[in-house]
Order: sequence, then structure tokens, then C-alpha cells
Amino acid sequence: MTTVLKLGGSVVTEKDRRETVDDDALSALAEDIAGAAGRATGSGSDAPADLAVVHGGGSFGHYHAEEWGVTTADGTHSATGALAIHEAMKTLNRAVLDSLQSHEVPALPVHPLSVGARDAAGDLTLPLDSTRRLLGEGFVPVLHGDGVAHEGEGVTVLSGDEIVVRLAESLDADRVGLCSTVPGVLDDAGDVIPTIESFDDVATYLGGSDATDVTGGMAGKVQTLLALDAPAYVFGPEGVSEFLAGGSPGTRID
Amino acid sequence: MTTVLKLGGSVVTEKDRRETVDDDALSALAEDIAGAAGRATGSGSDAPADLAVVHGGGSFGHYHAEEWGVTTADGTHSATGALAIHEAMKTLNRAVLDSLQSHEVPALPVHPLSVGARDAAGDLTLPLDSTRRLLGEGFVPVLHGDGVAHEGEGVTVLSGDEIVVRLAESLDADRVGLCSTVPGVLDDAGDVIPTIESFDDVATYLGGSDATDVTGGMAGKVQTLLALDAPAYVFGPEGVSEFLAGGSPGTRID
Repeated sequence: MTTVLKLGGSVVTEKDRRETVDDDALSALAEDIAGAAGRATGSGSDAPADLAVVHGGGSFGHYHAEEWGVTTADGTHSATGALAIHEAMKTLNRAVLDSLQSHEVPALPVHPLSVGARDAAGDLTLPLDSTRRLLGEGFVPVLHGDGVAHEGEGVTVLSGDEIVVRLAESLDADRVGLCSTVPGVLDDAGDVIPTIESFDDVATYLGGSDATDVTGGMAGKVQTLLALDAPAYVFGPEGVSEFLAGGSPGTRID
Repeated sequence: MTTVLKLGGSVVTEKDRRETVDDDALSALAEDIAGAAGRATGSGSDAPADLAVVHGGGSFGHYHAEEWGVTTADGTHSATGALAIHEAMKTLNRAVLDSLQSHEVPALPVHPLSVGARDAAGDLTLPLDSTRRLLGEGFVPVLHGDGVAHEGEGVTVLSGDEIVVRLAESLDADRVGLCSTVPGVLDDAGDVIPTIESFDDVATYLGGSDATDVTGGMAGKVQTLLALDAPAYVFGPEGVSEFLAGGSPGTRID
């Protein structure tokens, strides 16, 4: 049973305040993840569990990406710019790791800039030898939105959502969860849509996200999640425990 | 023309003082690398140059590896231990990157824990998609000794020297340079041996290194460098400019 859990950048950071971790939210998530890991193995939360975590950039990566004019398609050849984006994301990643480890989750980082590459068409290669071996050894690999070397563009943005999709496919994941600031995909009355099976069903409800985000909002997420083999769930922070316990919080996309 | 340059951990750190960068030595090396890059392209030191840099652990990684009993063969399943080793190496890597970037070398990090894996026999997989693309886009990838996920062992040590050998082979490097604290491989009179073509010629001269080092001394370096297709050079910090200019400082191993 392989699970991919995305922690939205706007959940683990204060997205409107530059480079600010939301420590309380992060700690609560770490506690829920630790509880689920302990339940899954029945032998304490530091025992093996096939869980890979991905987090977004929130107020860390996005500001730097905007400052350097870097998107998923338009890059920079400035090593200074690329390093600014990458180091900001590693700072956030360290906060996530520390919170998870303080709750006995055996989390270790996998930094995508070190791993992947895009060709001139933007297609991504992301060899997951490290991620797979870390999972096999009982660790919880924690990836994140990052920069990525891109043929002809220098370094472009690799979004957390793109990593989630790649992990789900490459690891043949059984379940994918996206923890967002909202309790699910909402209809125009503000209610959670329980199930989405086609984008046409919900296209009229979906706009952009409500704060700075160079990597797209809910519409893009739903479209990519529909393309996965595994069922995906979109839920708020209160849905993490239920998702990791095998339940169906928020919106199921399949 | 692809060049791999190793900066020994004992060159860029004060190896007997825990987690202490040798700022003066590092800055002088960065200046020499910048000068060589500018000369190679004839158009300023931030222009493309096929140079990959690797640095060792010095007083950063080795202390933590010893504390956690981690070697290249014996690992840890403690995420705390593995993260301690990895984060110490990333701190040193950041100092190396900052020094190189301050001299206009377009350096970006590649963290091996994120990339590679060992199987149960200890054989290393290290997919270099990111390193290759960074080189192709004109960046100078900077790798380092690190931890690596190892089947059945958790996380073991991946030495800078092992990375150098892998880079040299996988990138089909033309020249490999190892910048050490000594001006070359020394004979029993303390003189630099100009050329080594077989280990038997020098086996009696080579002992271990003179300070804490979990990853072996000069004897191991010479043996692995002899196995490379590319010529390798062992030299002191004063030999970096000559090496990058195409000369033969110190000891040539081929």
C-alpha cells in the first residue's frame, strides 16, 4: 500500500507573509501523520510505512520565483536566482522534516533540483532511485516544489503538484491525497463536491487560487488528478487522519 | 572537454575543528576556479564551462558519521542520524556554493542523498540527469560526500571520492583533479611522485590520512583513480589553476 500525500504550500506556510512557516498547522499535520504511521504498522510510528510526502512552496519558493521571473516554462540562467529559489524551498523543507521527526516520523529529504531535468519540450525526467530505496528502508521521503534544470531555459519551476503526479505514476501509488486550505473542491454554493469523475462536471466552479501561486490553482490540480490511475482526494487539514486511515475525506477524484 | 574537480574535505574545512569552514582556503580556490572558467570561455566567468565540482566532508560529515556509527558499509535506520549527516554536509555545501557564486562561478548544488541508492551488495545507482542538464545549461554542479539509501542498511556513507569516480565514468570526463592538502602523492622522502601507472609502484609509500576520515586515505584514492579511463591528477591547492588550465600539477595517475 503506497500513499502519496501532498501538503499544500498554503497549509504549511503563512502564504501572504514572506518565508513564514505556519508552525501550529505543521505540527498538527505531523502529529496526524505520526498517528497514522503508528496505526498502519501497529508497532510505533517509526516503523516502515510506504508514505511519500510532497509539500508546496507557499510563501517560500513563490516569492523568489516571481522575483526572478521564473515559471514552469520560463527559466533563468542566473545561478544566483536559481539558488535563491532552491535554498528557500530547502529552508521550508527543513522545517517540515524537523516537525515530522519531532513526532517520530522517519522523514528524510529528497530535493528535486538534484534529481530531475526537463528537455526542450518541457518533459520531465525524474529518476526515483533514492525515493524508492528510502521507502524500502522504512523512511518517509519528503519532496517539494523546487527548481529544475531545463534544456534551453536554465532552471524553471517544478511544482509540488507535478511531483505528486510523477510520484503517483512512478511508484504505482494506491492513494493520493492533497491537503489544501479548503475542505475539498467547492461548488458555487461553497459546498464540498463529494466526487469528480470528469472535468466538465466542475469546470464552471473552478477559478485560480486566492493568493500568489505561480503553479496554478484548483482547476489544474483537478485536471491532472483525473488523469491518474489511483484515486485522489482533496481535503483540508482536518481530513489528513481520515485519509491516512483509508477513508474518503473531502472530494474524491477518480 | 569535461572536467571533474574534487576539493578535499580537509582543504575546504579545518578538519580537526568540528564544522568549521576554512574560509580563506575556500575563497582562494573559488577565485582560481573563476579565473579558469573565464579563460576557458573567453567571455567572462559566468559563461558555460563543463566543470563538475565535488567536495568531501572534512569536519562536517565525518563527525556525525562517526557519532552514528555509519560507514560506507554499515548504515543507520535512524532518520535523525541520517539527517544529521546530510544537513551537516548541506551546510558545508552552501558555504562552497556561496564562495563560488561570490566569484561569479555559476554553481548549483546536487545533493547525492536525493539522487542515488545502493543495493544489498553495496553497488551504487546514481542517475545524473540533473547534473548533466545543469552542465548543459552552463551551470557548475557541486556534489559532495553524503549519506545514501542502502538496501538492508538504511543510510550509509557515500564518499566524495566514490562520487568523483562515478562522475568521471558517467560523464565520460576528459580530466579528473583531486585537490588535497598535500602537493601530490608523496614517496618516503616526502617528494611528489610525478606519475603513477600501477599501484604496486607506490604501495609501500601509502598509509592512511592524518586526521579523522571514515572514507579512506590516499591508498584508496590511488587505486580507484588508476581504474579510470581519464587521467587523474592529485595536487595541493596551489595546483588548481594549473590543472584547470590543462597542465599537470602534482601527481599524474593514469
